[in-house]
Amino acid sequence: MRLRNVPGAPDLIAEHPQLVIPKPEECKGKWATVFEKDQPVHIEVGMGKGQFVYGMALANPDINYIGIEMFDSVIVKALEKLIENPLPNLKLLKVDARFLTDIFDENEIAIVYLNFSDPWPKNRHAKRRLTHADFLDRYKHIMRNDGEIRFKTDNRGLFEFSLMSLNAYGMQFEDLSLNLHADEPEDNVRTEYEDKWSKKGSVIYRLVAKY
Amino acid sequence: MRLRNVPGAPDLIAEHPQLVIPKPEECKGKWATVFEKDQPVHIEVGMGKGQFVYGMALANPDINYIGIEMFDSVIVKALEKLIENPLPNLKLLKVDARFLTDIFDENEIAIVYLNFSDPWPKNRHAKRRLTHADFLDRYKHIMRNDGEIRFKTDNRGLFEFSLMSLNAYGMQFEDLSLNLHADEPEDNVRTEYEDKWSKKGSVIYRLVAKY
Repeated sequence: MRLRNVPGAPDLIAEHPQLVIPKPEECKGKWATVFEKDQPVHIEVGMGKGQFVYGMALANPDINYIGIEMFDSVIVKALEKLIENPLPNLKLLKVDARFLTDIFDENEIAIVYLNFSDPWPKNRHAKRRLTHADFLDRYKHIMRNDGEIRFKTDNRGLFEFSLMSLNAYGMQFEDLSLNLHADEPEDNVRTEYEDKWSKKGSVIYRLVAKY
Repeated sequence: MRLRNVPGAPDLIAEHPQLVIPKPEECKGKWATVFEKDQPVHIEVGMGKGQFVYGMALANPDINYIGIEMFDSVIVKALEKLIENPLPNLKLLKVDARFLTDIFDENEIAIVYLNFSDPWPKNRHAKRRLTHADFLDRYKHIMRNDGEIRFKTDNRGLFEFSLMSLNAYGMQFEDLSLNLHADEPEDNVRTEYEDKWSKKGSVIYRLVAKY
């Protein structure tokens, strides 16, 4: 995703501490109390402009969602959507995914979504890929025993790496598609990126796996 | 593959007991003695017309190969090739893969090749797929501890099933490609089918896995 500097983004974020939680590490162990209802928490790591996590929160009011993103210029797009059409079960965090274990306690998360994550194609950057063993460690630390990782990408190299990485980690594949849109499930919520690239003919890969 | 009745096929097979071993169960535990040299044995289950296993045997004289196929009409094509250009390190078997454990003893096989196996797309036929757990049991029984399965297919459904099946069996993925010909390894020996369908634009998938 191209990142532009969005003037006023930091201010808009600071003005909505109920939507973009400012000190998330203080919520560690008590995320249930941050939301109106105490119900399972699903997170999206790298939510981009938030179309996916917003659509999921809208479709599933019995789940609490947290969209996580590092960049002001992107998170502000999700925030604008949420200001315009508030949802009680969606919060946003401006956080680097390497610090997930500072923010969530053991067993706090039921599902981690990874959608069209940065492929970091160079081998020397493999540790930055969100399906690298170092990240699988972090997700495991914060997830329930029956927790799942749900991963979509159109990047063949990243998907090959991820299949190898999750298999080597001993994770169990629950569901797998090498062309998701060839027989798209009714409940598939598309990301902005997924919409755009699928229309241009990209194949979308999907993997659901458990620890 | 379309199967035609090939007149004279059973006779030609019967006339070459050195090439198509007539009672393979009698060789169980002593396959090393069937070949000129005592060296690792690799098998291809479902070799079709044998282009792959012939090419492998030609390229790797320090490996003994066994091509396995159920149908006279197909095995005879591989046999004709071998009569015309004999190779000391290739034997053929007319056998149903369900009976592999009657034919090979523990630790006799180093690598099992599966190339463009019948996808058996209907769910009720899943047990017939050569990557079903029942077959993984059989291969495990006859393979060395460091043995590998090397699998290629252009069938998306079969590849999805196989990734799930080998992962569920606890096998370790060693190598994986979701588009083998995009960056074709120099040592990739193509099957007839692979050649034909790749030229027509099919994507070729490949997985190498260990127990």
